[in-house]
Amino acid sequence: MMIKYEKLNAEEFKTEIKNILSKNDNKESIYKLSEIYDKNLPKESNIILEKELKILLEPYKKGSIGVAQINPIAGDIEYNSQKVVKYIQHAQNIGLDLVVFPELTLMGYPIEDTIDRHPIIVEENVKWLKEIAKITTKTTALVGFVEPRKYNHLTGKKYYNSVAILQNGKIEGIVRKSLLPTYSEFNDYRYIEPSPVIGNQPGNTLGDFDSEKIQKCPMTNLINGLKYGISICEDCWNNKEFFNDTTLYSIDPIDELSKENPDVFVNCSASPTRAKKEQLKHNMLSFISKKYSTPIVYVNQVGAIDNSSFDGSSRVFDKNGKLLARAKSFKEQFLIVNPHMELGKIYPLTKGLEKTLTEAKVYTLEYEPDLERTYKTIIQGIKDYFKKTGFQRAVLGLSGGLDSTVCAVLLADALGPENVFGISMPSKITSSESKSDARELAQNLGINFTEASIKEMVDTTNSCLQNLFKTVEQKWDCKYSQSFTMDNIQARSRAMFLWGISNEFAKCLPIATSDKSELYMGYATINGDMSGGFAPIADVPKTKLFALAHWLNKNREVKNAIPEAIILKKPGAELAINPKTGKPLIAEDALMPYEFLDEIIWRVENKKEHYYDMLNSEFLYESKHNVSKEQKIQWLDKFYRRMSSALYKWSILPPSVIVDSRSINKYDYKQPITSSRINYKGLDESIIEEKIKNFIDV
Amino acid sequence: MMIKYEKLNAEEFKTEIKNILSKNDNKESIYKLSEIYDKNLPKESNIILEKELKILLEPYKKGSIGVAQINPIAGDIEYNSQKVVKYIQHAQNIGLDLVVFPELTLMGYPIEDTIDRHPIIVEENVKWLKEIAKITTKTTALVGFVEPRKYNHLTGKKYYNSVAILQNGKIEGIVRKSLLPTYSEFNDYRYIEPSPVIGNQPGNTLGDFDSEKIQKCPMTNLINGLKYGISICEDCWNNKEFFNDTTLYSIDPIDELSKENPDVFVNCSASPTRAKKEQLKHNMLSFISKKYSTPIVYVNQVGAIDNSSFDGSSRVFDKNGKLLARAKSFKEQFLIVNPHMELGKIYPLTKGLEKTLTEAKVYTLEYEPDLERTYKTIIQGIKDYFKKTGFQRAVLGLSGGLDSTVCAVLLADALGPENVFGISMPSKITSSESKSDARELAQNLGINFTEASIKEMVDTTNSCLQNLFKTVEQKWDCKYSQSFTMDNIQARSRAMFLWGISNEFAKCLPIATSDKSELYMGYATINGDMSGGFAPIADVPKTKLFALAHWLNKNREVKNAIPEAIILKKPGAELAINPKTGKPLIAEDALMPYEFLDEIIWRVENKKEHYYDMLNSEFLYESKHNVSKEQKIQWLDKFYRRMSSALYKWSILPPSVIVDSRSINKYDYKQPITSSRINYKGLDESIIEEKIKNFIDV
Repeated sequence: MMIKYEKLNAEEFKTEIKNILSKNDNKESIYKLSEIYDKNLPKESNIILEKELKILLEPYKKGSIGVAQINPIAGDIEYNSQKVVKYIQHAQNIGLDLVVFPELTLMGYPIEDTIDRHPIIVEENVKWLKEIAKITTKTTALVGFVEPRKYNHLTGKKYYNSVAILQNGKIEGIVRKSLLPTYSEFNDYRYIEPSPVIGNQPGNTLGDFDSEKIQKCPMTNLINGLKYGISICEDCWNNKEFFNDTTLYSIDPIDELSKENPDVFVNCSASPTRAKKEQLKHNMLSFISKKYSTPIVYVNQVGAIDNSSFDGSSRVFDKNGKLLARAKSFKEQFLIVNPHMELGKIYPLTKGLEKTLTEAKVYTLEYEPDLERTYKTIIQGIKDYFKKTGFQRAVLGLSGGLDSTVCAVLLADALGPENVFGISMPSKITSSESKSDARELAQNLGINFTEASIKEMVDTTNSCLQNLFKTVEQKWDCKYSQSFTMDNIQARSRAMFLWGISNEFAKCLPIATSDKSELYMGYATINGDMSGGFAPIADVPKTKLFALAHWLNKNREVKNAIPEAIILKKPGAELAINPKTGKPLIAEDALMPYEFLDEIIWRVENKKEHYYDMLNSEFLYESKHNVSKEQKIQWLDKFYRRMSSALYKWSILPPSVIVDSRSINKYDYKQPITSSRINYKGLDESIIEEKIKNFIDV
Repeated sequence: MMIKYEKLNAEEFKTEIKNILSKNDNKESIYKLSEIYDKNLPKESNIILEKELKILLEPYKKGSIGVAQINPIAGDIEYNSQKVVKYIQHAQNIGLDLVVFPELTLMGYPIEDTIDRHPIIVEENVKWLKEIAKITTKTTALVGFVEPRKYNHLTGKKYYNSVAILQNGKIEGIVRKSLLPTYSEFNDYRYIEPSPVIGNQPGNTLGDFDSEKIQKCPMTNLINGLKYGISICEDCWNNKEFFNDTTLYSIDPIDELSKENPDVFVNCSASPTRAKKEQLKHNMLSFISKKYSTPIVYVNQVGAIDNSSFDGSSRVFDKNGKLLARAKSFKEQFLIVNPHMELGKIYPLTKGLEKTLTEAKVYTLEYEPDLERTYKTIIQGIKDYFKKTGFQRAVLGLSGGLDSTVCAVLLADALGPENVFGISMPSKITSSESKSDARELAQNLGINFTEASIKEMVDTTNSCLQNLFKTVEQKWDCKYSQSFTMDNIQARSRAMFLWGISNEFAKCLPIATSDKSELYMGYATINGDMSGGFAPIADVPKTKLFALAHWLNKNREVKNAIPEAIILKKPGAELAINPKTGKPLIAEDALMPYEFLDEIIWRVENKKEHYYDMLNSEFLYESKHNVSKEQKIQWLDKFYRRMSSALYKWSILPPSVIVDSRSINKYDYKQPITSSRINYKGLDESIIEEKIKNFIDV
């Protein structure tokens, strides 16, 4: 039975706190109490709690740190500041030395070009910073912000990505980010100037810092007799030794900082979760603390901003590289630590952290270790996208197929089943099993459900279009003998229904249910299933979706919500009849086996293989099935042909959560649509030589 | 009467050439002949032509340059190489010293992340480069390519953006780009390492260049006794003096190069056209050549790649900063110049080059000077997007309104009228004038036209939806009293027709007709008028569209193709009836006067003003009309509210041509969709202080 601390009156609350103190030792009591703090208590309870915590923390005071893992809203400086003030206040009330916040605390990360087009928000974040500084009379605070550089006669970009050291009621120092990532979804270098100096500079350089007047002052900052070496996110990701001499930047800020012999490193980050990254991050941070015999406190942003889902999981390593504390993943938290005294707590990140996230050399269908992270990443992605844009409800088509099914489960868990409406929209091709599977799923999930036939709409559209086609045909002699028009009309009619509901009912978004494998193949209808306000599974390949469906059935509170029949049936859009079988077309017949397709995708994204790399090595699918060379060539050709035509669809895909190590999300991967004629097979030198001769002859 | 040189037989051709030579002096003959060369002549005619050109060029040989302004396809290395080989061959046959190509010649610019995910294309571009080098036995060639850096133990990004100096049948030298832009649509820094060295390095450093083993060799390259100082695009855009001490980078490659006293600067560029940029470019290049008393040869890419339209307009300035030659805009060209001898030709860029492109301090409706550039930018954008993706035909809805009308004219001119189908799709709200205006327009343009009522579809959809809404209403008590459902059903039904035709007929794309003003306001229907394969006018504000319509009527071969009635009528989507007037709703009633709206957009984009900047200064519209403060506040509030909700729509906008100095194109401007709660008004310090106190009290 969970106690609802926020509902107790002061007397009841005091009793419960005493109860905790009597049952636990000091250290355990600190965690228990700090967890209760996160629950937005009434003022009186708060005072009781803080008093007890302060007493408990007395022996740990020197070097004590509050790790404030917050979930900001991009550009909503007031909202973000409120969180900052709350945690500074808390840290001061319980007597901590230091409270640390993630990168760009006041602005939220990423904020992108907004700071260039609307510079007023930068002015605002400086104003808030200065006012917040005034309240830091006891505890030092590290608060991230966008720092404007002086405008006239400026060399370089207009801003720094900075962390202010707020101490004694003022801005005591400023640390500026030196290494600016531009890969994946990162764009730091667009408007941010890399800092030429590592470590902190005086607070009075705010906005006016100039490399010509660098004051050589301590790079580390003294708090209660301890020296802190402060860096920002990417600044700690460039250790030559750890990355086998292959690094992105020529300087290593951590190595620079180490020369001043800090007592502890602090790194303020906003680092989104990606498959494989968690284990890498763990190893890297552990390596650094061990190498420099210095503890490291790593505070990470939590929450999703558009396509990027930040997992939090802030961490503390002792000077031997041992993990001392880890904050929760995908939740805001105020974690109290003392990196010198083994004061910390470790929350499980995902069940199979060690397994999932090391780099696999070959393709595998063993998705299990990564499924909890995948699930939580998407749940947070949906939740925050809706919350931060002011939406509350979702409507989606339930086809009885895997894609819409998994989307429905994720939406129910993210938004609450009462906020989800599943609509079964059968056409004449839809089987009765599909309809009943959809209904059963909705019942199991407790979401709203109804059935609405699209038959009438499809018939009307079709008859209107037939006339129109006849007219067009008279002028344009280029009609396909077999077109996808009918298939698409069905998908588009369904989207019409969903967008209609979104238009008619407040705060409601329709959902795009396309998955990653099918998006690679362009096997998704424009203004149909790929249209929506949000696309939850656009970065989940089909084989992983099957695994996720099994995992959901096993691990959710309500077991087996997904009818077994949905997982067992072969995926197919039920938009067309296969002339050979007389039954609805199976997607794998139109494309290729998903297991084969997903391995191509995996090899392209993770190994950067090309056509012949793949043709000349064995696929997992081939180890189980007999695949002729002709068949393999046909599939590979189809992959490259369809992928090249799918580039346009990727460009208009709704916002979605990036989950995988690599993706086709347009904020993560950029390829010109007009590059569809690339020769992915490559040519031999001798053929090139021959071709050039022919060019000359012509 | 234009002579079709490519159709003449050798004898006829020879006669025509003699004719030219007899009528013109040497210099004029060179231009005339070089223009004929661009026409893909039969082999025999080519030989005749080259022989004559070679003789004519003899006195200009030392320092003669062929400026090969080519239109590449991103990633299609064979296609691009064919152009390179053709022009190298030509340069050799007529005895030029040097032939220069734009930035990333073999790959096309931009190529974006493609080089990271598909490294085979980088291998390919190196193979082609090496083979092309072999043919450069007489003329030196500067060819741009993506240069891989050695992989193991690498510091920095994987590639350089390089230009190879092909000479004596081999890669003699390599110049690498140092300044890497990341603003607007540029992303150079994502996968490109800035070169630590200016000027050329030995050819044998290809791929293996390492800053640790810099060989100090001449930065300039000797060709026929002259020294060439070679740089790449952005490298020449950092002159401190010209930019009033406000520069993006700390080094100036041109200044470095000047120390070796080159006889001429060469800059290989891929620089897209934007309003205001042309005049800036002119002044900047002129300034540099004058400052260093060194001529500059600037070769620019032509053609559109996705959203970026490159205008070509390659230029040559003499050592006094005087424009000697300018290549055509928006056309491929092989321009023969000798920067030391005033050998050059100037083609008009736009009629009002001097007027249009200086920075305006206040908003103006004087669009005239920029209309020809706007027109040609979009025409090229459409043409190249269709050609490079393999499409040929366009279908669009003709509402009789301004947006679809201007789109129809642009498409007719870009694709040929026979490849355009305009469909009038009246609903019950559509006036008979709208229908007849659309028909008249189609006739004037000579495009295909038909009428197809959406009434039946709208009725069917509507009746299906009414039932569905009733069911949903039972669960969700959040129905709007006034929704946009009916308006949107009309727009979506029309898009259904257009996408249906696209699905049924080969190589046909539907067109999204939304304009910039309405996209800012989110006044565009998802899966409706904002859906399509391409969006031609997404970066043209409404007031400029009116000006463009007038301009088109005046300047196209067929005058007054746009019926006057279309330009005169007040824009309105004809999707709903205004309950006050009983007539179709006028857009300005739903939004605000376009002249006022467009000035807000202009101020936000160009002056980066905020809410109070605008409230407290006079708008052009206010100088003509009486606007109460309440009214102005209402419009400004509406602008920020609607813009914040429109961010999602911007993210799913189809590819479009960037035309303005600034835009909302997602590859040019990035803002998180979840940043919709930004306070654009800002707060005073005293209010912030008060708010912080309240945060603490809570």
